[in-house]
Amino acid sequence: MGKVDILKLIKERRSVRKFQDKEVPMQTIKNSLEAARWAPSGLNNQPWRFMVKSKQEKDKLAQYTKFGQVVKEADKLILVFLDKKSSYNYQKDLMAIGACIQNMLLYVHSLGLGTCWLGEILNQAKEISRELQLPSQLEFVAAIALGVPAGEVKLTGRRLLKDLTLV
Amino acid sequence: MGKVDILKLIKERRSVRKFQDKEVPMQTIKNSLEAARWAPSGLNNQPWRFMVKSKQEKDKLAQYTKFGQVVKEADKLILVFLDKKSSYNYQKDLMAIGACIQNMLLYVHSLGLGTCWLGEILNQAKEISRELQLPSQLEFVAAIALGVPAGEVKLTGRRLLKDLTLV
Repeated sequence: MGKVDILKLIKERRSVRKFQDKEVPMQTIKNSLEAARWAPSGLNNQPWRFMVKSKQEKDKLAQYTKFGQVVKEADKLILVFLDKKSSYNYQKDLMAIGACIQNMLLYVHSLGLGTCWLGEILNQAKEISRELQLPSQLEFVAAIALGVPAGEVKLTGRRLLKDLTLV
Repeated sequence: MGKVDILKLIKERRSVRKFQDKEVPMQTIKNSLEAARWAPSGLNNQPWRFMVKSKQEKDKLAQYTKFGQVVKEADKLILVFLDKKSSYNYQKDLMAIGACIQNMLLYVHSLGLGTCWLGEILNQAKEISRELQLPSQLEFVAAIALGVPAGEVKLTGRRLLKDLTLV
């Protein structure tokens, strides 16, 4: 893998919602999860767990979000769970999982691939848990659609640093 | 800034708890917050807010954690808040803040500087909010000690990918 300017990588990464009909090799997914698993967590408890869905299994999950088209177009859907048995503090665990997801998003972006971190799908967390027959210790907290980007990416802005910083 | 191998950067970054008595330029801190503010968030709500503390102001906060020595040795302490007025979903906001913090940690590590993401200090969130006379809309969710690393860094391990991935 090539080297990147980390600040440029961070600033340029955006949600990708349209994908080409191309496959992403499973090795790339494994490397993405490899990036994810090295995130920091409180007491190094690593509360994150993953499930990778493709093809029909993935498309079946599309019905649980109004952004189903994104799920269908993406080559893979990575489901992220909080493992309650590894949890020690819900608030910190969620932040750690955010860090873990960001590792994944940045790594995938560095390869020229696209991701969309889906939040709205959590509204149907109960139905999805049933669909997947999840053990009760797993709480569904995020889904990442992943694939080869198609077309232009919408460049969202950010608040100015002066509006985010308190003295 | 030089270019980096993102996977290597992610895998090698660890908490730094011992720092040299050297100053980190304010421009570096600004760049770190710049990295932070480009994180993704649900509805792009950007619920993160920051406060940078150094010298006596920083050392005063050391009393609120049993890891006060880390706070004292670090050149800067970056306090991270969740802005309740920008919030739309507490769970997703926390994950977004985790992503935002990870951007910061990775960027700082790419410069050869060290960070320690402090969690235990949150036990005294109420006292710290009072000390800082925080407006009630800000919830204190994390503190990052930052400085020039001293000595060896403890290399914590991670669970194997096969133990994190469900089929």
